Amino acid sequence: MTGKQSLLFDKDVYVRCAATVVGKKEADGPLGEMFDVAVEDDMFGKKSWEEAESHIQEMAVDKLLIKSGMAASDIDYIYAGDLLGQLIATSFGLMRYEIPMFGLYGACSTMGEALSLGAMCVNAGYAQNVIAIASSHFASAEKQFRYPLEYGNQRPVASTWTVTGAGAYIVGDKPLDKKKCVLIKGITTGKIVDYGVKDSMNMGACMAPAAAELIEANFKDLDVDKDYYDAIFTGDLGEIGNRILSELLKEKSIDIADKLYDCGMLIYEGETKCSGGSGCGCSAVVLGSCIMDRLIRGEYKRVLFVPTGALLSTVSYNEGKSVPGIAHGVILEGKES
Amino acid sequence: MTGKQSLLFDKDVYVRCAATVVGKKEADGPLGEMFDVAVEDDMFGKKSWEEAESHIQEMAVDKLLIKSGMAASDIDYIYAGDLLGQLIATSFGLMRYEIPMFGLYGACSTMGEALSLGAMCVNAGYAQNVIAIASSHFASAEKQFRYPLEYGNQRPVASTWTVTGAGAYIVGDKPLDKKKCVLIKGITTGKIVDYGVKDSMNMGACMAPAAAELIEANFKDLDVDKDYYDAIFTGDLGEIGNRILSELLKEKSIDIADKLYDCGMLIYEGETKCSGGSGCGCSAVVLGSCIMDRLIRGEYKRVLFVPTGALLSTVSYNEGKSVPGIAHGVILEGKES
Repeated sequence: MTGKQSLLFDKDVYVRCAATVVGKKEADGPLGEMFDVAVEDDMFGKKSWEEAESHIQEMAVDKLLIKSGMAASDIDYIYAGDLLGQLIATSFGLMRYEIPMFGLYGACSTMGEALSLGAMCVNAGYAQNVIAIASSHFASAEKQFRYPLEYGNQRPVASTWTVTGAGAYIVGDKPLDKKKCVLIKGITTGKIVDYGVKDSMNMGACMAPAAAELIEANFKDLDVDKDYYDAIFTGDLGEIGNRILSELLKEKSIDIADKLYDCGMLIYEGETKCSGGSGCGCSAVVLGSCIMDRLIRGEYKRVLFVPTGALLSTVSYNEGKSVPGIAHGVILEGKES
Repeated sequence: MTGKQSLLFDKDVYVRCAATVVGKKEADGPLGEMFDVAVEDDMFGKKSWEEAESHIQEMAVDKLLIKSGMAASDIDYIYAGDLLGQLIATSFGLMRYEIPMFGLYGACSTMGEALSLGAMCVNAGYAQNVIAIASSHFASAEKQFRYPLEYGNQRPVASTWTVTGAGAYIVGDKPLDKKKCVLIKGITTGKIVDYGVKDSMNMGACMAPAAAELIEANFKDLDVDKDYYDAIFTGDLGEIGNRILSELLKEKSIDIADKLYDCGMLIYEGETKCSGGSGCGCSAVVLGSCIMDRLIRGEYKRVLFVPTGALLSTVSYNEGKSVPGIAHGVILEGKES
């Protein structure tokens, strides 16, 4: 290990390929043009929201295999998760590929967790190619965590909007395109952080402490400061969580406001009805669209990707528990040869 | 990889220490004397079943650290999971240790998944010591998946009884006792298997196909037959699932009935009210008690541990979906020097 929470890989671990699938609201946003697949119908032609989310995962893997020219049999492992109880979106979505699977739950940090474990696996030489995937769906998440959509509840200004989408990645030991590729250089694995926030309509505030501690740990472990990165992307803190994070980091004498972006703010920028996007799918699709694009184009040389998760369920919330957070950091580098 | 689904480790990966915590019913069963901690009160002194389950995880980790003489700061990663939606037993139970955490969901196969990922991590040299842990609680699981206990529903003969308990393990690159130790020699990682069974009161039937395919894959990948193992332990198929598994394996020309044991049958042997024990905690505590004991005493030289999970939620069940299964295999060897 490098420091207490980080690993730097000794081999080249590549993000060989990315595929993103989103719903209408995401397609209508400022990143709309950059997603691989956008579907007008948020039911995705299915009978239930859960089936729709499973289908989004399936579409993302299908697109990934097409883009990479690979078959499911070329993939050694799949690291996957979603937000629903018992990961049903994942189980029913990925069944038909018959790939050895590790089911993951890191709430909205799952994309970071899946990429971390996938990169650890490839760097160790256990596999040549693995898939990392995470998804969320606005309606299945509202049903899971909040109110039935038919109830038409009002949403406070701090509330985020769960992204309908999935991001899927092939992590492998070779690049797909030798000229332009993205490397996973290392990871910083998060601990559970609980500052006692209990407001499930203000997830940004619940998760910001975990993001702050993760960024601090990453800087300490690698003995770097903000100059090491061109940009740092949190997962889905939204505007309010983003402001809290900046404040928390300032208290730690880390002032990175000029390099700090939030996937949740980027995906719905200009949207006034929510504080930003959330859900595993949020950081999963923003990474696969604008972050990967800028790394490949050389606009960024090195990025810290920090998806954040809020560890609650309706049961824990109704029993009066706080909402702890967790964040997983992935160090990404663009490489041109 | 060895074959399509297996890894054999090139270094010695040790199960350094095990700790098991159970409730009253488990303590009253035939393995009762072998568990580290047994608590009479299934509320474990807490206000809710979920808090009780979190506390069981905490007690298991505490016991593990005491038994091994290690501190939480000696542990590099924790791989953990439970059955509850959004893994709340794990999040609230393990928070205070401040160890980098990977949250896992493999239903009742989670103990196999956690040991697999933990062993992969240690063998790769990423960590010297990691904890793998899984838990379940009868009452929190009934509330999560079936009926409120107060409803007093009748249980069909095929139904299993969720074990109240947690098993925790330190997986490390050195043994605790050089004379007698247990090694993780390799793993076989499961795929999702769905034979279309829809009866959530007959989980054994849902999971038996995944166990059958996992055992077949293990034999093929390692090019071995049943003589390679002294015993094969499934996680929580129960009597009916165990019979189905034997039949399925016979169809694959694998006749291992004389070496096939089920943790769910062992933990409640003689109990007539259920088909056996189930839940992540079932295989987790049976491994840490009788299986580890027999490996250390030399009664077994090599064992295949195959926890099995049923991938359903109340949502998927109520939407008429089938209950797919998954199984994760861990090859354990006793070593005396």
